[in-house]
Amino acid sequence: MALRHYTLDFSLSTPVDAASTVPGLLSVFHDQEMTETVHDTNGHGYLATLVGKNGRLVILRVHSHGLVTIDLQCYEEDNIAQLDNLLNALEKKLKVLLKGNIIRIKRLPALVRGAEVDRYWPTTDGRLIEYDIDQVVYEEDSAYQNIKILHSHQFGNILVLNGDINMAESDLAYTQAIMGSGKENYADKEVLVLGGGDGGILAEVVKQKPKMITMVEISFSSKVIDGCKIHMRKTCGNMLDSLTGDCYQILVQDCVPVLKKYVQEGRTFDYVINDLTAIPISTEPEEDSTWEFLRLILDLSIKVLHPNGKYFTQGNSVNLTEALSLYEEQLGKLSCPVDFSKEVVCVPSYLELWVFYTIWKK
Amino acid sequence: MALRHYTLDFSLSTPVDAASTVPGLLSVFHDQEMTETVHDTNGHGYLATLVGKNGRLVILRVHSHGLVTIDLQCYEEDNIAQLDNLLNALEKKLKVLLKGNIIRIKRLPALVRGAEVDRYWPTTDGRLIEYDIDQVVYEEDSAYQNIKILHSHQFGNILVLNGDINMAESDLAYTQAIMGSGKENYADKEVLVLGGGDGGILAEVVKQKPKMITMVEISFSSKVIDGCKIHMRKTCGNMLDSLTGDCYQILVQDCVPVLKKYVQEGRTFDYVINDLTAIPISTEPEEDSTWEFLRLILDLSIKVLHPNGKYFTQGNSVNLTEALSLYEEQLGKLSCPVDFSKEVVCVPSYLELWVFYTIWKK
Repeated sequence: MALRHYTLDFSLSTPVDAASTVPGLLSVFHDQEMTETVHDTNGHGYLATLVGKNGRLVILRVHSHGLVTIDLQCYEEDNIAQLDNLLNALEKKLKVLLKGNIIRIKRLPALVRGAEVDRYWPTTDGRLIEYDIDQVVYEEDSAYQNIKILHSHQFGNILVLNGDINMAESDLAYTQAIMGSGKENYADKEVLVLGGGDGGILAEVVKQKPKMITMVEISFSSKVIDGCKIHMRKTCGNMLDSLTGDCYQILVQDCVPVLKKYVQEGRTFDYVINDLTAIPISTEPEEDSTWEFLRLILDLSIKVLHPNGKYFTQGNSVNLTEALSLYEEQLGKLSCPVDFSKEVVCVPSYLELWVFYTIWKK
Repeated sequence: MALRHYTLDFSLSTPVDAASTVPGLLSVFHDQEMTETVHDTNGHGYLATLVGKNGRLVILRVHSHGLVTIDLQCYEEDNIAQLDNLLNALEKKLKVLLKGNIIRIKRLPALVRGAEVDRYWPTTDGRLIEYDIDQVVYEEDSAYQNIKILHSHQFGNILVLNGDINMAESDLAYTQAIMGSGKENYADKEVLVLGGGDGGILAEVVKQKPKMITMVEISFSSKVIDGCKIHMRKTCGNMLDSLTGDCYQILVQDCVPVLKKYVQEGRTFDYVINDLTAIPISTEPEEDSTWEFLRLILDLSIKVLHPNGKYFTQGNSVNLTEALSLYEEQLGKLSCPVDFSKEVVCVPSYLELWVFYTIWKK
């Protein structure tokens, strides 16, 4: 049983005297048979908590500098219309009491806390976002990842890896961007895909009849493949039903030894598409190994790239400017000199703009 | 001075005994010199409020059915690192105390309440969304609307009318969609635009060298034009600097009498683009007049449409299925029979998928 948490805030142009505001508000609560406890705040304004029937709780604060905040918590099965009326009555009363002193009235959609299906998936840059998610359709833990597939009315099924929105059925724009935004011709080309467990890249490249696509998906992600081949078919089609097809093969292996073997054999690809994971966000010293790992993969990938080939990868949120700069720094440290370009793309389910990179040998 | 409001919630697989959980948690708060008041909840679990220094407030609830919720409010200028540490300590302690009984731990990005710049602009379907807005660049009230232009790092400037996100500089996708998604040729065509005060449609159609674009923007929106021509130049270019140009004219008039005059004159257009306002969301009886107004404009627009012409308009959020159905019902009630098609489009700053309509004479 979830908790609904409403907030109602009045920002004021001048400080407000609690004595002139509070009694009028309390009368609204008393009508609802709620009784208050007033707390000592050591000079930080007025604070009362009010407990009502059915587990209802109200926190009323009149902050000395000119802000009134009201929190109302109730259980999900409570009478929502009644609570809306209570908030309406409070808002109306406060408008009268604070007349001429109001800069902004803010009443947010209720936070739903402890619900069976979690709808809150913050953006990479840490903003609070509520998705229209109504169902968990798949959930598994692998040795390294928590894998969820969640259903959204507007985005279809969404793959979530370790709490990060990875890809939704609505996100053809992601696959198109990481394939070069429609400017490439994959016919008769040799293509290497690192990661890509959702099968989206595979499904789109195959349509262009390449010579061969080799997709290397590390074994601990096979639960990703298992989930996607059932629940993300708008993205992967029937690509993941079999590990080999007319012009593709899926190697369920760690990509590092595979890349090393290709380097040794002198094998090259026209396109290398790195769809492994986002660029590490943290820049803490202990994360150095993540950057090293990323650079290792980059270095090997560039080594197996045909001189006229292209390497595509996703970057990060356009708002994570520091992480993007650090990534671009790595590009200057490869054993083979490269140039790059980037593009900002709107991937529908991400709810933040995303940077994609194209890298090639100088 | 804004309030930061943190939440930390533990969903549990079985009900939990407050006596086994609370003392351990309280010790964490006592370390922070916070003292509790325990409330009688009439059998709805354990509830304590704790007041600390600098206006800090904690609400601790152990709900009888298996949910622990913690709210922590502090002022913006408080020591945020210290509060993060407190939340980390609480999370760690709870993990130990509730070991084996935890379904989900949820710690949301802090809600910022009463801030100078408001970052929360819910979607049309009522979901909580935090934008990366850092500045109010323009704000005016006209007789009918509150007009804001807000700056977002990722979307550029965003036009907000009466609290609804209307258009951002990132939203060329909106303009392209309402022009027929690149499938039309406007060269030498007669085009009528209703609304469109941000100038986006004007700027894009002009590029295709039409015979003439007539844009009819109601006079009370001239403050929209005033704001957009300064702050939305990525969208409107220099289109709004003058009311007439080589192949366009802006009539600052109510569109209804203008349309009626065109009907009387027997004038027709190859394209009519209605960019006035979203389809009314409410379906309450008192809103009938809104639907009537909308149908009046539609009816007049179809009358001035060339037999082979097309009428484009935005619809609504793809999630507002009822409002969309009601709109489609209106299309069956016009004096001239029409057919229609619709398309779902991702407009970057909307953070919800949007439906666009193409309508033509049968």
